[in-house]
Amino acid sequence: MELSSLESNFWAIAPGVIGAVGLLFSAFFYFRVKALPDGDATMNRIAGYIREGAMAFLVREYKVLAVYCAVIAVFIGWALGGLASVSFVVGAFLSLLAGYIGMKAATFANVRTAQAARTGSKPNALLVALDGGAVMGLAVAGLGLIGMGGVYYFFKGHAQLSPILHSFAVGASSIALFARVGGGIYTKAADVGSDIAGKVIENIPEDDPRNPGVIADNVGDNVGDVAGMGADIYESMVAAIVAAMAIALTANATELSRLVVDSSATGGAKVAGVVLPLVLSAVGLIVSLLSIFIARALKKMNPAQVLRSALILPPVILVGLSFVMMNVFGLSQNITVALAAGAFGGAIIGLVTDYYTSSTPVQRIAEASITGAGTNLIRGLAVGMESVGISMATIALVAYIADQALGLYGIALSAVGMLGGTAVVMTVDAYGPISDNAGGISEMSGLGPEVRAITDELDAVGNTTAAIGKGFAIGSATLTVIALFSAFNMEVNHTRIAAGLPEMSLLLTNPKVIVGLLLGSILPFMVGASTMLAVGRAAGAIVEEIGRQFREIPGLMELKADPDPKKIVDIATKSALREMIFPGLVAVVAPPLVGYVLGPSALAGLLAGALVVGATMALYMANAGGAWDNAKKYIEKGKLPGHAKGSHVHKAAVVGDMVGDPFKDTSGPGVAILIKVMSVVSLLVASLIALR
Amino acid sequence: MELSSLESNFWAIAPGVIGAVGLLFSAFFYFRVKALPDGDATMNRIAGYIREGAMAFLVREYKVLAVYCAVIAVFIGWALGGLASVSFVVGAFLSLLAGYIGMKAATFANVRTAQAARTGSKPNALLVALDGGAVMGLAVAGLGLIGMGGVYYFFKGHAQLSPILHSFAVGASSIALFARVGGGIYTKAADVGSDIAGKVIENIPEDDPRNPGVIADNVGDNVGDVAGMGADIYESMVAAIVAAMAIALTANATELSRLVVDSSATGGAKVAGVVLPLVLSAVGLIVSLLSIFIARALKKMNPAQVLRSALILPPVILVGLSFVMMNVFGLSQNITVALAAGAFGGAIIGLVTDYYTSSTPVQRIAEASITGAGTNLIRGLAVGMESVGISMATIALVAYIADQALGLYGIALSAVGMLGGTAVVMTVDAYGPISDNAGGISEMSGLGPEVRAITDELDAVGNTTAAIGKGFAIGSATLTVIALFSAFNMEVNHTRIAAGLPEMSLLLTNPKVIVGLLLGSILPFMVGASTMLAVGRAAGAIVEEIGRQFREIPGLMELKADPDPKKIVDIATKSALREMIFPGLVAVVAPPLVGYVLGPSALAGLLAGALVVGATMALYMANAGGAWDNAKKYIEKGKLPGHAKGSHVHKAAVVGDMVGDPFKDTSGPGVAILIKVMSVVSLLVASLIALR
Repeated sequence: MELSSLESNFWAIAPGVIGAVGLLFSAFFYFRVKALPDGDATMNRIAGYIREGAMAFLVREYKVLAVYCAVIAVFIGWALGGLASVSFVVGAFLSLLAGYIGMKAATFANVRTAQAARTGSKPNALLVALDGGAVMGLAVAGLGLIGMGGVYYFFKGHAQLSPILHSFAVGASSIALFARVGGGIYTKAADVGSDIAGKVIENIPEDDPRNPGVIADNVGDNVGDVAGMGADIYESMVAAIVAAMAIALTANATELSRLVVDSSATGGAKVAGVVLPLVLSAVGLIVSLLSIFIARALKKMNPAQVLRSALILPPVILVGLSFVMMNVFGLSQNITVALAAGAFGGAIIGLVTDYYTSSTPVQRIAEASITGAGTNLIRGLAVGMESVGISMATIALVAYIADQALGLYGIALSAVGMLGGTAVVMTVDAYGPISDNAGGISEMSGLGPEVRAITDELDAVGNTTAAIGKGFAIGSATLTVIALFSAFNMEVNHTRIAAGLPEMSLLLTNPKVIVGLLLGSILPFMVGASTMLAVGRAAGAIVEEIGRQFREIPGLMELKADPDPKKIVDIATKSALREMIFPGLVAVVAPPLVGYVLGPSALAGLLAGALVVGATMALYMANAGGAWDNAKKYIEKGKLPGHAKGSHVHKAAVVGDMVGDPFKDTSGPGVAILIKVMSVVSLLVASLIALR
Repeated sequence: MELSSLESNFWAIAPGVIGAVGLLFSAFFYFRVKALPDGDATMNRIAGYIREGAMAFLVREYKVLAVYCAVIAVFIGWALGGLASVSFVVGAFLSLLAGYIGMKAATFANVRTAQAARTGSKPNALLVALDGGAVMGLAVAGLGLIGMGGVYYFFKGHAQLSPILHSFAVGASSIALFARVGGGIYTKAADVGSDIAGKVIENIPEDDPRNPGVIADNVGDNVGDVAGMGADIYESMVAAIVAAMAIALTANATELSRLVVDSSATGGAKVAGVVLPLVLSAVGLIVSLLSIFIARALKKMNPAQVLRSALILPPVILVGLSFVMMNVFGLSQNITVALAAGAFGGAIIGLVTDYYTSSTPVQRIAEASITGAGTNLIRGLAVGMESVGISMATIALVAYIADQALGLYGIALSAVGMLGGTAVVMTVDAYGPISDNAGGISEMSGLGPEVRAITDELDAVGNTTAAIGKGFAIGSATLTVIALFSAFNMEVNHTRIAAGLPEMSLLLTNPKVIVGLLLGSILPFMVGASTMLAVGRAAGAIVEEIGRQFREIPGLMELKADPDPKKIVDIATKSALREMIFPGLVAVVAPPLVGYVLGPSALAGLLAGALVVGATMALYMANAGGAWDNAKKYIEKGKLPGHAKGSHVHKAAVVGDMVGDPFKDTSGPGVAILIKVMSVVSLLVASLIALR
């Protein structure tokens, strides 16, 4: 096939069409899940509470975000024009839409998974949870491709294509930050608060129906791990694609000539560079869809192995298809090399994460609990720190290989490669909280230990795959930020040269760069601190309210009266919405402020400082949290002889898990998104602060 | 006075002479303390155990370091010549000597402080502890000046002055790293191990004479907080001076012309630039000496206020004297501005540290303990993260002002300014463990609560001032590393230009710089993880041995038999010496390895990445640890109504303190030194890897 055929409308429209196909399958799974039998009256009542609480949070969150979007849209409209403003709104809206669809599906799937487990069929229960997750997975990838593909199709010849693309990414990113941080605070405040009030103070089991915080805890799984995570992954995909497209749009002919075998064909190279990230992501969606069906077909096998291969396969198959495509179009196989670096790098990071959160290190943390919570915590913090090593070294290696292959464009493509399986990653990620909810519903409805055993097994698998998913997310975030960083520099210098100014100095010895680096290193710690504090504060308020209900509702402890879960849901909702503002504003305000006051060199330093500190902190917190969680589970499974559930050793491990909760599900992901939001916001304002 | 008079032998010899005066006063205090009355037989026996254990550790540590020094000396001799090799050995030897003198004094002062407290005189007890600390403080600053001044005096015209200076700093830095990490592991393993075995498992009080780990705990205070800290501060001073001298030696005439009022006098400017860091540090020593005597004279006032002003005064007076001196010599007052930025910045960082480790945040951590160890830890980690903000912003501001005043030389001078009070900082730092030891000795000797009350008050003051001292140390480390980083770049480019090569690319968009940044961000986490694990492992071994003694020594628990503290001392010694190797090697091997394999640009990136991650991590860990410690003490003082010592709330706070122990005294300081060692090693090998 001719290289020039990439310029045809076919390749411009294909990604959006494939996105639409993904969305259709999402709808298919949605209605399939909804048509399944739900539970008995008690189960449905509890599931109703959860659904109601989750959707109520989402609606209130969306109202806050609508105000935010309106303000930013006006600003973008003023600074960069109406089209950019509309693109920003669309980018944000599609994120909200994906979250809405996916979370609704999850809140139907949870009770139906419990019902399937109740009929004794583990494969069926697995299938319901997987289908429920696939609604979110396919909606995220589908809507992402529809949006980005649409923007490209309609504006591919437009002079304002760059700001339009950047605005779309800013829309996606800022929703991701707020949704992830808000959802993360909600879920962990409810989780930690219920655990303290129930397990620690009253000594009643997890998910006990007397505990009014349990509903909020289950709501939290949905708003944090489904809606929040969905917005996060949607943003990752959008940002990686935009970074690659932005570099291709500003790169010069020499740089682009590396994309093609016949170096005289540089005309086609630009189009190829711009359209490839979209096309490859679309191929990734097709491969992911296949993987989902393969996983469904294997439902009777060991769930852990099925889900693990579903996660690793799509990026690898994508690499094979890329090899064929590049041959067909006469494009350089260096493209495949960059893509492969990201895909295999992602797999390595996934395996490393898996090791640190489920293997020997977890066992060591469990053993350290024998001498108390202090040693459990010291060990867990050390494991988290240690886990940073190989993951970051892998990212450095991927960046090095991708750069050798194709320069900075290669680094952006490696992020696209790592995110090749976006739909599957999200499917498996949403599968986790659905199984978790199913367990909660069966416990609260008193369905008995056989049912709980099935949901527990499904849930345990979800924990491991969630850790792998987080590894992918943080790894791709780092690569994407490097690519966005380059796009930012190109954009700034483009503007400066057009204005007759010299390029900005990005020398590490430039004092402005140094000051920027130092300031940038602060921001991840600010976001980490504020989210930890938020969880601590909100959990405290929840503990107090649960204690009040235990004291003041007569007959509650004797199961003769019902608790009032709505109060807890209300506290969690209000806290999360209030506390998400500060970290959100830091991420959005810091880059333009530093760029405006200290100039673009300092802003570049700010991004670099935030990148290295943020990426390492995110890995440290996510992996320490995962390891603590599984160390507690390790003891609960009776794997530490002589120290069963309820022993003082187990209690020590519960403390570690409690600290790990906000680490892994609030602060860690919050910091990872922070650096992405800062980068896309910087890219957006690059031309505005370039001359300062 | 003429600018050219700075070239006279007077100014070259003055710093060394003032250093010798400092050393004489150190000797004066040493013999003064030794001549004071010691305690009764029991006290002296216990003090003897402590002294014996501490000196035995030092001797064994020094044997290991002798091997290390021999290897590095041969390497330096081969690569940079015999003089550099000798300079390295002298730099290392003086560090060891200061540690030996100071720790010997501290192990005499502890029992004499207890004795003074026994006679009921708080002012006298304060004086003994202060004098004991002053031996170390004045030895560190005195030997530092003698060494650096001597090197400058003998080699000021020598062509190899640069490598000779760098080698001296490498000697100081590598001893600092090993001594700090080894001492830090020792002290915290003994502390955490004794606490778990005694307070947590057996429920006996701290420093109970039945607990065989208490002696090792008290030994640890000496080897970690006296000898380790001494090597650290000695290194800070040396590195700051070397960084400034190195920049002055490689700077060109235009850069140096900013140093003088009459810009035609650039000949004298170079000499001024080289000699000023030494002269100003010498003035700092004189001012510090005065401050020590002022503090002694005020012994009857509130100890906290006395020590706090002793810490803040010297840098401030130094700034005033600098103003006068610059006027006299016709040098630019920009020198004073840079110096002042560092001096006042240090004071701000001290106050910020003080706030986070003794004010509202501590109260909040104490309150969070009411709902258990989990919330105590979440709060403490958040406080540590939050504390990074203002401190790092202050450092960024100092760097900015100093750079505006005098360029990169100004940044180096600001570090010199921040370290103006080195002798006092070290005096106050060593005062802490002496008071702590005095408390331990009085408890183990059964001297009764009145004595303990006096030592406890002295100890509490030491905790706060220790936190301020750490703030100074980390702040000056960051500035010093920025300066060293610049010196490294100048050195590399110097070599490259001489070889006809272009300057290395330090652009933030250079993929080698990016790869270096990512790799550099890993190292602080590696050192953090390995030191945390080391403390955890060694503490575990100590808990086991203490438990064995409790079980197997008949009559021990009934106070009828004595424990065997030497076994614990032995375990701590062996663990510390074994576990300090890995972090030490990482710091020394990583820079030449990356420089050799990936080239100088990647090494520059490595330093920058390690700098931002290391500085923030060090602040985070040091301040979180300090806050946890004081939150526990807050509860012990009964300031949390209804939750006294021994309550479950207090136990939750003990867990936080236990995690904070290695955070603040092992990993945090270890990471802070790591970045300095990496920088001086890079500076040393700069010319060797410049052409790669």
